[in-house]
Amino acid sequence: MEAFKPTKRTRLRRLPKRGHYDRETVYAILDAGFICHIGYEIAGQPYVTPTSYWREGDTLYWHGSAASQMVRTLEAGAPCCVTVSHLDALVMARSGMHHSINFRSVMAFGRAHKIEDPAAKLAALDAFIERMYPGRNAELRRPSAKELRVTTVLALPLDEAVAKVRTGPPVDDEPDYALPVWAGLIPVEMKFGKPIDDPLLAPGIVPGAALKRYRPGRG
Amino acid sequence: MEAFKPTKRTRLRRLPKRGHYDRETVYAILDAGFICHIGYEIAGQPYVTPTSYWREGDTLYWHGSAASQMVRTLEAGAPCCVTVSHLDALVMARSGMHHSINFRSVMAFGRAHKIEDPAAKLAALDAFIERMYPGRNAELRRPSAKELRVTTVLALPLDEAVAKVRTGPPVDDEPDYALPVWAGLIPVEMKFGKPIDDPLLAPGIVPGAALKRYRPGRG
Repeated sequence: MEAFKPTKRTRLRRLPKRGHYDRETVYAILDAGFICHIGYEIAGQPYVTPTSYWREGDTLYWHGSAASQMVRTLEAGAPCCVTVSHLDALVMARSGMHHSINFRSVMAFGRAHKIEDPAAKLAALDAFIERMYPGRNAELRRPSAKELRVTTVLALPLDEAVAKVRTGPPVDDEPDYALPVWAGLIPVEMKFGKPIDDPLLAPGIVPGAALKRYRPGRG
Repeated sequence: MEAFKPTKRTRLRRLPKRGHYDRETVYAILDAGFICHIGYEIAGQPYVTPTSYWREGDTLYWHGSAASQMVRTLEAGAPCCVTVSHLDALVMARSGMHHSINFRSVMAFGRAHKIEDPAAKLAALDAFIERMYPGRNAELRRPSAKELRVTTVLALPLDEAVAKVRTGPPVDDEPDYALPVWAGLIPVEMKFGKPIDDPLLAPGIVPGAALKRYRPGRG
């Protein structure tokens, strides 16, 4: 896969070693997340809306009510920035100012468009379920015409993006290493818990294969 | 505490029952997080920057390099939107379109200002460490004049904010409850791991009381 070309908006000026432009790194970070933060502007006011999303190939997707302000703003062609971030560790150094966090994040810039073709829209929504719960679509009631009508799917071509990553131990000023202060990492992980039945679940129905990915205790 | 007054920007038009304007709910969501997403605009392009933050009273704080584009834009008085979100569960329904997520999020709107007074700035940075690691400041080398000079602390008065929360089981269309499909929640939790010593830690130094909050396995 061809790497992203750094642009005025994606080139890291400070700490450039934290920046990654290869699609493997960017896509792995995107694929590890469930909520993205979409930045857009209405009448001079920035908004940041947290939303579920999915990636297929070189496109990032999300959906929303056709009536939502975010959806209407973006389908009209407003520029946006979509950010996904994961916290991996709290980094404790020997001075306050060198405390930090280990994280992985992606920022993607561009303009999203609405998927108009009904078949393409249905395929995109199926891909969302499939990405989240492999095999699940086959178990479900299909989307109705009305559901499809009131839902908009937006697609952002991944043309301009950058990953920013911090890993590793704290970095202290040289003289501070002599201080008798504990320093290190507190790892932070996202973990899945034990599935909880819907209280209205009919007796005898057990989770299907689609839940394999979410084994309790895994992240 | 007096609740936030819903405004044009914070009033939830769709699903209003997910909106919360009391400060207790908003502050509990802010205090449970480590990374906020700051939305701002430069030359017509929205940016969403993930950043560490902390809250004290009715003010949200974050810091950054004085040279950072985000910091320079915001200290100049640009409007911003700060969003914090937590994923609590994947919600699996009996149709694709009713799949959802349980989450808690806060959006806060306003203009941040730079803390100019050196004593107030130092106090704010101390409060950040104290919020994260109670008791830690006493163990650390104090910030140097240079560190303080190259770091900017921004403060956003929490005047206009809304929490959005989804909890509980999936909500399916009435006829779909008869389908033989598993439905329910997959809980998602942030968990702390076992602290990892800095490889350069001098022998015999053990984590101090500040790490009590981060007992492995807790969230």
